[in-house]
Amino acid sequence: MPSIELEYPKQPYSKVKRYDSRASYALETIHEIINTSPILHVSFNIPDSPFPMVLPMIGQMGSFERPSADTGDVLELYLHGYVSSRLMNLARKQPSQQEEGEKGLPITVAASHVDGLVLSLTPNSHSYNYRSAVLFGRAELVDDPEEKLYAMRLITDSVVRGRYENTRNPPTPAETQSTAILRLRPAAGSAKVRSGGPSDDRADTADGALLERVWTGVVPLRCEAGDPLPGPYNRVAEVPGYLEEWRRGFNEEMGRRRGGV
Amino acid sequence: MPSIELEYPKQPYSKVKRYDSRASYALETIHEIINTSPILHVSFNIPDSPFPMVLPMIGQMGSFERPSADTGDVLELYLHGYVSSRLMNLARKQPSQQEEGEKGLPITVAASHVDGLVLSLTPNSHSYNYRSAVLFGRAELVDDPEEKLYAMRLITDSVVRGRYENTRNPPTPAETQSTAILRLRPAAGSAKVRSGGPSDDRADTADGALLERVWTGVVPLRCEAGDPLPGPYNRVAEVPGYLEEWRRGFNEEMGRRRGGV
Repeated sequence: MPSIELEYPKQPYSKVKRYDSRASYALETIHEIINTSPILHVSFNIPDSPFPMVLPMIGQMGSFERPSADTGDVLELYLHGYVSSRLMNLARKQPSQQEEGEKGLPITVAASHVDGLVLSLTPNSHSYNYRSAVLFGRAELVDDPEEKLYAMRLITDSVVRGRYENTRNPPTPAETQSTAILRLRPAAGSAKVRSGGPSDDRADTADGALLERVWTGVVPLRCEAGDPLPGPYNRVAEVPGYLEEWRRGFNEEMGRRRGGV
Repeated sequence: MPSIELEYPKQPYSKVKRYDSRASYALETIHEIINTSPILHVSFNIPDSPFPMVLPMIGQMGSFERPSADTGDVLELYLHGYVSSRLMNLARKQPSQQEEGEKGLPITVAASHVDGLVLSLTPNSHSYNYRSAVLFGRAELVDDPEEKLYAMRLITDSVVRGRYENTRNPPTPAETQSTAILRLRPAAGSAKVRSGGPSDDRADTADGALLERVWTGVVPLRCEAGDPLPGPYNRVAEVPGYLEEWRRGFNEEMGRRRGGV
């Protein structure tokens, strides 16, 4: 952990406008939300389309230069994909003579966890307890084979901790070649977090008849990792320890959240 | 249900390139994924930023003109937000003299469900079982008070079916004024769905020692609605029937998925 809490600079495009009391620019908060999200939504523009693209992808933040870096440190986001996908082709085509800070494909990455449904007295005061983060930055393809391997391991272990070690590794040259790794250097980012119970206007909470009629509170949404289902060519009779340990940790963390209340 | 399965037109920006055997352009598949997703990721471009914006939002597809329309029918997506948010201001500022089909703010909406972690023999063959959809279209603010009310009810009931009826409704004029509703008319869309067990190359599945060492299968991820937690000013002792019924349906549907296997 750095001894001070690092924050991303507030940019016009990254500043939270609505409910800014829920906002955070802390690297640790933002990185934590991204690294615990099984899926990221990655947005970028493509030529000749009025609509931005959005792709669901797997990714993870880490530091190749300082692999022991903590969540609150300066990190980069690694995304992996097929080598000739639209996103990878676009990143490949970025002019390389751009100035530092302007190199790479501009992309935006979002991660959101819904912790609970907040049911209040009026339709308009309904809300979610949630943790969401968005990260803006420029992305370049990773060429260095060592860094590529680092990212492949980082991403595999983000699915289930310890998994990389317990598979057939390292990837073959053909596998490494068919996989492209994109590295995003964050330029800015923000998070928004809501927790707690319902919140209604005084005019409604002072209405006794309304209080007697409408149930208010939070319905926790909990994502649970269920019993592993062996596949058709599995020959390992017992579910391995690292997998059960990961599953227990995952489910305990979810249980602790109690809907964000 | 329409008697034929309607599909969105394949546009250069909407065509699935990778794993196109997993792709679908069917309205029903796409709308179903969007309408069962508690959170949508909405992307659009803002002036003076190289990065697209991505916002997590609540939304629901329906038809104001034919409220009894089915999921597979032609529908529109309603998103709600604060009246002076960046997105709503941008939508408001769109020139109104544009030609039909070019009216409104271009936005892209993505929804993704992760059903299971697919653990295979090699890091590269790991995958998820998932259902994801992306919808492209132009969005305009809803002015008609009746349509706005329709959308507010649609969105509230998308959180918990029957909730709107069981709160203090309709919204007051002040509430209606402070809430903006955005209506997106889809121009194109696509879905991608993976289900089933792990899939590895023959070179790996023929490796007996590898099969003895690496557990392969699917870890189901299940989103569960937990026991409702009453808030500080709740006075309704028993959790209402419609809420318990919704919760049971939600959890049963999740249980049925069995990780997408």
